[in-house]
Amino acid sequence: MQGTAQTQSQPATAYAPTDRTVPTRSPNRASYDRELVHAILDEAYVCHLGFVRDGAPVVLPTLFARVGERLYVHGSTGSRPLRAAGQADPGLPVCLTVTHVDGLVLARSAFHHSINYRSVMVHGVARDVTDPEEKRLALDALVDQVVPGRAADSRPADKKELAATAVLRLDLDEVSAKLRTGGVNDGPEDLGLPHWAGVVPVGKTYGTPIPDPGLAPGTELPDYLKGN
Amino acid sequence: MQGTAQTQSQPATAYAPTDRTVPTRSPNRASYDRELVHAILDEAYVCHLGFVRDGAPVVLPTLFARVGERLYVHGSTGSRPLRAAGQADPGLPVCLTVTHVDGLVLARSAFHHSINYRSVMVHGVARDVTDPEEKRLALDALVDQVVPGRAADSRPADKKELAATAVLRLDLDEVSAKLRTGGVNDGPEDLGLPHWAGVVPVGKTYGTPIPDPGLAPGTELPDYLKGN
Repeated sequence: MQGTAQTQSQPATAYAPTDRTVPTRSPNRASYDRELVHAILDEAYVCHLGFVRDGAPVVLPTLFARVGERLYVHGSTGSRPLRAAGQADPGLPVCLTVTHVDGLVLARSAFHHSINYRSVMVHGVARDVTDPEEKRLALDALVDQVVPGRAADSRPADKKELAATAVLRLDLDEVSAKLRTGGVNDGPEDLGLPHWAGVVPVGKTYGTPIPDPGLAPGTELPDYLKGN
Repeated sequence: MQGTAQTQSQPATAYAPTDRTVPTRSPNRASYDRELVHAILDEAYVCHLGFVRDGAPVVLPTLFARVGERLYVHGSTGSRPLRAAGQADPGLPVCLTVTHVDGLVLARSAFHHSINYRSVMVHGVARDVTDPEEKRLALDALVDQVVPGRAADSRPADKKELAATAVLRLDLDEVSAKLRTGGVNDGPEDLGLPHWAGVVPVGKTYGTPIPDPGLAPGTELPDYLKGN
């Protein structure tokens, strides 16, 4: 971070909506709040990255990391999307989507069945990261996005590994969150029906870490994994 | 199912690979096995649907269902992708991806950090379902994909609701699975490093169902939710 409290420009509290980030349906479920967007992104580490190849869409599940107002994804320098981004000028148009499922909403009517969820959709142009320092920080961030604190407790990439890894950057600029929370929305005429209705909470769990059989003697489970 | 054991044509045990379903990286992680693809799809109910709008990719999280060799997604007739599919001839080119995260793979080297996952990617053209009977079956399947047995225990869509709902069909034809399983793949030179290495299992959990406060008196939790 640069500057002082006086000269530093604070980002707006919300992303500016654009034509493609304003949904045609359920606009009340959309949000552009920066803190909410960051929170949804920070709880995830897998995104679905969409791009166009030979005129057709491709949706690739991949790891990502957020560093401030930038997202990073990485992959082999030989992978098709990353090659495409490196070669394209000014980069590769992408849509990066992150989704958390929070609950199953079972209504009395089939029509009102739904899912409680929180998602973020980022539109933009992914660009190859060529600055070695930014690339190194992005790779650390990709590890820390999965397990905070882990990057410092692993061997950093060496020159050969860095050269084999491509990193793409996507700025958080054209961004929206979409979410559904709460209970069942049956119409009043259905409330007397005998079907059970309600919400089944959905969550993610982490099991007991399984150590690699070849761990160096005396290697303890690190504190940052003890919460699991 | 039609025909007898003699005349029935069994689908091949694997989907035929195509240019775009053969990955450029880690081809050993790809599979075209039909049973494996079905199992990965059937364990999910949320997919990420990619399509192209105004030349740019869009990735939309949405519910889906599998019925045999067909996938269905639905939405409001007013939603942009569904309108586009209804208007386009012969339909809307899409890529539908389903991903399960099974574990965090923490290697001694940052480079070999990975995720255990199972994913399915379906390429094809999504078509508007116009046959009323197919549409009704697809809507039941969409409810049952989330909670098996639920469609029969809810009020079916009425004419107005059916008219407000668009259903798209995507045939399972150009399909691949990709998965990573197992442990850490550190190089031999890193095995003596003091960093903990291993796999943290990741799973999905379902909490205690929360009944709608306005349930009709005497409405019991149905058996199909008692496993939660």
